[in-house]
Amino acid sequence: MNGAQALIGTLVDAGVTVCFGNPGTSEMHFVAALDSVPQMRGVLCLFEGVVTGAADGYARMVEKPAATLLHLGPGLANGMANLHNARRAGSPIVNVVGDHALGHKKYDAPLESDIESAAGTVSGWVRRCTSTDDIAADALAAVQAASAGQVATLILPADVSWNEGAALSSPGSAEGGRPELDYRVGLDPAEHELHEIRSATDIAGVFGADTVVLIGGPVCRERGLRAVSRIAAATGAMVLVETFPTRLERGAGVPTFDRLAYLAEAAGAQLAGAKNLVLAGSRSPVSFFAYPGKASDLVPDGCELHAVVGDVPALLDEIADAMAPGQEPVLQEPQIPALPMDSAELNFQTWVDVVAATLPENAIIVDEANTSGTLLPQATRGAPRHDVLTLTGGAIGFGLPNAVGAAVACPDRPVLCLQADGSAMYTISALWTMAHEGLNVVTVILNNAAYAILRMELQRVGATGGGPKASAMLDLSNPTTDFAALAQSMGVPSGRATTTAELAELLRVGYATPGPYLIDAVVPPLL
Amino acid sequence: MNGAQALIGTLVDAGVTVCFGNPGTSEMHFVAALDSVPQMRGVLCLFEGVVTGAADGYARMVEKPAATLLHLGPGLANGMANLHNARRAGSPIVNVVGDHALGHKKYDAPLESDIESAAGTVSGWVRRCTSTDDIAADALAAVQAASAGQVATLILPADVSWNEGAALSSPGSAEGGRPELDYRVGLDPAEHELHEIRSATDIAGVFGADTVVLIGGPVCRERGLRAVSRIAAATGAMVLVETFPTRLERGAGVPTFDRLAYLAEAAGAQLAGAKNLVLAGSRSPVSFFAYPGKASDLVPDGCELHAVVGDVPALLDEIADAMAPGQEPVLQEPQIPALPMDSAELNFQTWVDVVAATLPENAIIVDEANTSGTLLPQATRGAPRHDVLTLTGGAIGFGLPNAVGAAVACPDRPVLCLQADGSAMYTISALWTMAHEGLNVVTVILNNAAYAILRMELQRVGATGGGPKASAMLDLSNPTTDFAALAQSMGVPSGRATTTAELAELLRVGYATPGPYLIDAVVPPLL
Repeated sequence: MNGAQALIGTLVDAGVTVCFGNPGTSEMHFVAALDSVPQMRGVLCLFEGVVTGAADGYARMVEKPAATLLHLGPGLANGMANLHNARRAGSPIVNVVGDHALGHKKYDAPLESDIESAAGTVSGWVRRCTSTDDIAADALAAVQAASAGQVATLILPADVSWNEGAALSSPGSAEGGRPELDYRVGLDPAEHELHEIRSATDIAGVFGADTVVLIGGPVCRERGLRAVSRIAAATGAMVLVETFPTRLERGAGVPTFDRLAYLAEAAGAQLAGAKNLVLAGSRSPVSFFAYPGKASDLVPDGCELHAVVGDVPALLDEIADAMAPGQEPVLQEPQIPALPMDSAELNFQTWVDVVAATLPENAIIVDEANTSGTLLPQATRGAPRHDVLTLTGGAIGFGLPNAVGAAVACPDRPVLCLQADGSAMYTISALWTMAHEGLNVVTVILNNAAYAILRMELQRVGATGGGPKASAMLDLSNPTTDFAALAQSMGVPSGRATTTAELAELLRVGYATPGPYLIDAVVPPLL
Repeated sequence: MNGAQALIGTLVDAGVTVCFGNPGTSEMHFVAALDSVPQMRGVLCLFEGVVTGAADGYARMVEKPAATLLHLGPGLANGMANLHNARRAGSPIVNVVGDHALGHKKYDAPLESDIESAAGTVSGWVRRCTSTDDIAADALAAVQAASAGQVATLILPADVSWNEGAALSSPGSAEGGRPELDYRVGLDPAEHELHEIRSATDIAGVFGADTVVLIGGPVCRERGLRAVSRIAAATGAMVLVETFPTRLERGAGVPTFDRLAYLAEAAGAQLAGAKNLVLAGSRSPVSFFAYPGKASDLVPDGCELHAVVGDVPALLDEIADAMAPGQEPVLQEPQIPALPMDSAELNFQTWVDVVAATLPENAIIVDEANTSGTLLPQATRGAPRHDVLTLTGGAIGFGLPNAVGAAVACPDRPVLCLQADGSAMYTISALWTMAHEGLNVVTVILNNAAYAILRMELQRVGATGGGPKASAMLDLSNPTTDFAALAQSMGVPSGRATTTAELAELLRVGYATPGPYLIDAVVPPLL
């Protein structure tokens, strides 16, 4: 078999059975080899940012890597923003980047570039295959590296793919353990001493009414949520979820907590008065951006910092058993907002109420609603149980691709993609893949015809002197994109909603329609 | 004034008067400062790949840099593919990448990443501003570096922008000279000795009937074309244009030459028998990709290699004066294909004939037609004089953004963007900027519903075993994107053409319509 066949066969044997791809000439042998390995599903995306965002969404839902297939340095570059988000999410991805044949590189042909340097900025592991003999072993190593919760980039020269003589590698122990989170990143040791909690005996005096437990990562799944709920109920500690969790289980029947606010001022208010801050799968809270005269570090003065270290969900179970042996977790009661009796205009409150009131059981919400979604968490708190995937790395354009990946991962679950208009345009061709693959994704575009978050940030950073030219750089209204027409142009049926009744009806249609559906929801901008 | 105001003011004083931007929070002071410097035009693009491609197109037409404004590492990443093309084009660009405030970086906030490493892969010059005192000097240095024909990346921390106390720098000598091309890149010294031509006295025995002059870069403009035409006419040498020129002047009244073919087989046939190959503003010819068992180096065996070194157009003038003192250049005769008497289906020949027959005087053709454009150069050879901008770096998605930049640069010239469908999807939101800015761009989408070039390449690389799964990865037909509807969704009027009569009529409408127009031209795929 040739190198490409051995690569794909080895990936499949190691459990990697989906490849999101946007190939080019140097990847043609990989593409041809797809037919020789029936277990590998190839999913074509029309832009690399869709490829990588889909691999991220897939990984968040199945907790194993998909493969990507990207075309040399520029293909990698196009996929890097969503690889950045995947890196921040701790998502396992086997990121395959095709390259020129080994002997061709010295000629500096037009597509030649420094792939390693670019890949290193988003990958925890980078390796170049240099021999067809080694390709299967390299593939296994990539799966192993990725499985630790990171992007593993495998650079694949064309001739390593096309040469014959390769053999499969047997998977062996291709399950990497999750690496421990580095809680210390960004902490100034002169300001903060960090107390590590490595067993249930390290917790004297930590949990009480003036304690905040900031959960993140794997603790946002049911097991961790139940454990911290028990601890909180027994001790009076407050639980907050990190601002942008990779995957948060919530809704009726699951302990459901507030998230730490995006705005540093609001986050500061949530944390004010805390004497102990316990990091449980999260990192120490910092401001998303810096603002003139404001601190980046959100840990209150005088607050002691603790971090649960190791297998955090298991350790939280132990702590709960030790501190709260008879305590049951506090489960969220079902609580669904009433739809307005009469139809109302869509606004910040009404659109999220409609979403909450109509949410199907077991939905996956991909949330890139940005400013329009400010009231979403509160409205959906008691909605039927669901998962929420959020923008972990701040690189916009994650929503539609993540929805592609989540829907490929979970074909039997409804996927609801709540997508801000400005961010939608970065990876809009994800709609084509939804149509092509018949994915059950209902997308709601929050169309406020503005980079509304930047209107807010322009004020928050204290920028003065901004006038019409500055405003024009944040305005998407001339022309306002018609997302319903845009969706139809790529084969996704759609409708437009300006009222609660229209949104409710179109959501009903969308959930009932096999394959994708898009709703262009006209909402007012924040500012 | 604050740092941002000094930066923009200094750029304007140095001749940089357009900023293509897609800003975020860390760039808000830059955005606010736009209003304080009336001479700087801000052009909003909805994706960074549009920003950088527009800056490239602008630079190709006015030969001075525009500025970009990108948001941290992910914004840079989204813009890197078109920066790669700009690097290969030798386009001057002042690439401004906003970053977190200096003191915020250590906190590793979600958007933190290694900007320098990524920028280094596409930039000839990278500098981080570290002080508001230095920002104007840094801006001048960036303009100077860019003016040498490269991407100069200036990393701009938010606090360096917002702090007060900056002052303008006076431009001084902000005109960098073009660096000399490295003709040796990719040449194996064991195989090829390179003879440098540094004056008109270094040419004994070089030019004759068995000589090929491969022109590129600045030689593709009228002065260089006239000089090589004189030399060729006097000596019998053959002139070829590099495969993907940055900007090629051609058509009636200008010496017009064939381009070296993209396909290595065809290029080999063009060069066969050459005893002398003279590189004049071009690099030594290599295969775009490697293919099993085929050479990457396209220099024929036994052919001597020469390179014109220094100010190449001026030196070619000297050589022409020395070798062909009385010789006039051979100008292309006007020659316009006849439109079919009866309307015909669009195919490879008929659509380019319609384009040639209807081309207005002084047009700028941005050519990313890919396989569909195979016969375009021949058809437009005798069309009214025009410039052609081509895909210099192979990173697809350059066409629509380059057309934006060319139209901003040359508002009085018609811009015709010939755009393959697959490539169009990488930077499709360029249409919004065309509508927003009212740019006179007529876009023809060559809609064959396939990655047709990859169907060809799948065969050329000798990939075996490809079946339905491989074919599916190259097929854009399910669903076929409706580009006419897509354009209208972003405010660009449009129509669909399936026949020569329809295409001719829609081109007439498009050229006559102020602002952008798009034609969804249904053409058959190559394979």
